[in-house]
Amino acid sequence: MRNLCATVSYEGTEFNGFQSQPYGRTVQQEIEKAIQVLTGEDILILGSGRTDAGVHAQGQVFNFLTESTIPAERWAIALNTRLPKDIVILEVHEVSLSFHSRRSAKRKTYRYTIDMGKFPNVFERRYAFHHPMRLQVEAMQEGLKHLIGEHDFTSFTSIHSTKPHHIRIVYDAYFEKQGSMLHMYITGNGFLYNMVRVIMGTLLQVGQGKRQPADMKRILEGRSRALAGPTAMSHGLMLMNVEYPAEA
Amino acid sequence: MRNLCATVSYEGTEFNGFQSQPYGRTVQQEIEKAIQVLTGEDILILGSGRTDAGVHAQGQVFNFLTESTIPAERWAIALNTRLPKDIVILEVHEVSLSFHSRRSAKRKTYRYTIDMGKFPNVFERRYAFHHPMRLQVEAMQEGLKHLIGEHDFTSFTSIHSTKPHHIRIVYDAYFEKQGSMLHMYITGNGFLYNMVRVIMGTLLQVGQGKRQPADMKRILEGRSRALAGPTAMSHGLMLMNVEYPAEA
Repeated sequence: MRNLCATVSYEGTEFNGFQSQPYGRTVQQEIEKAIQVLTGEDILILGSGRTDAGVHAQGQVFNFLTESTIPAERWAIALNTRLPKDIVILEVHEVSLSFHSRRSAKRKTYRYTIDMGKFPNVFERRYAFHHPMRLQVEAMQEGLKHLIGEHDFTSFTSIHSTKPHHIRIVYDAYFEKQGSMLHMYITGNGFLYNMVRVIMGTLLQVGQGKRQPADMKRILEGRSRALAGPTAMSHGLMLMNVEYPAEA
Repeated sequence: MRNLCATVSYEGTEFNGFQSQPYGRTVQQEIEKAIQVLTGEDILILGSGRTDAGVHAQGQVFNFLTESTIPAERWAIALNTRLPKDIVILEVHEVSLSFHSRRSAKRKTYRYTIDMGKFPNVFERRYAFHHPMRLQVEAMQEGLKHLIGEHDFTSFTSIHSTKPHHIRIVYDAYFEKQGSMLHMYITGNGFLYNMVRVIMGTLLQVGQGKRQPADMKRILEGRSRALAGPTAMSHGLMLMNVEYPAEA
């Protein structure tokens, strides 16, 4: 029995999220189907976390136990030939049996992209939320800084969160402009359900002048979802990467 | 009667090319339908040139005659709300009645993109031809240089070309690497049917070591399509822009 760890990219547009669901196409189910075709094994893969319907990933990570003797470096190409075009396995390597893609994860980075062009960029429309009205990006940047550090993020998660507590650490968070695209990068030790999208929905209100940058601090301290802004559209969100400690 | 000139971007994936065809969805037909809904006019638009099925455009240009009194600057937003998501009008302005988007065009720039990554970039897969085998980019660059200038491009056009002669000027042509993406930019006074795709198909053979850079010159001088390489896939091709003389 071997434990294999894989990095996968996918375009979320046509998926009902990463994790298996009773209804709709999911990334997990497509990958499990490809493994079944490749090895005959009926196994479950374990993702580093779920991504919602419509959310993309450049570097999602999952692991799975297999009896197959196919060398680790052959898996990516073998699975890619059996996967639909909107899923691409980037790398597979063997890890210790104690490795758990969710519990072992140390840091995750997400990106949320806003297309600030007058009209949508037709080639980026699946990966960027189009917002043609002027945004005060410096105010958004100032507001975002209040979230860096260890905080209770209850205000910035869905009321449907099932986590025992909402304390998370944001290590870094910043905006970067690239032409008419505005990217928000945020790195933390873990993210709550809808957390990045609620942060962005609230920062958009800051950018529109409906809220002040310092409101982000007050919303955080209030610990109530009702204080924050709306949940930004899923298609602007991308899981960039998941980091693990170097294995001993 | 006014003559309006528009710049349009489109993702070619779901189109059977720009120009109206008896079968399949075309960009021209979608735009004409939107104009019909907007003004009630049953008009034909005139593109700067056709793009093939699957080819994209960042800045295709077309013009049309209209009796409508809608101000030019209102047209882009009015059409975009009536167009499918894979077509975005970027700008509309009034031109003299003598303006003809094809005959008045002075220069066009195309880009052809190769994804040289081991596995395809899932987000660029509709806009890049995936070629995971190693390419000698410097040899391709050297081969490409032979095409700059005024030449008879018979060898680099489809045998189905209907043009009276095949002499065209290439003003500039170069490669640019961007991560695992290799872009070829080529600017000329006009392009023959399949010209950029045959050039790229031949340069790929140079990059693979199957031909020498100097072969490009010999192929050009031989004036026979049979001497050149295959026609590269359409989805890697993008019409970047069309340039016109400043109107007096």
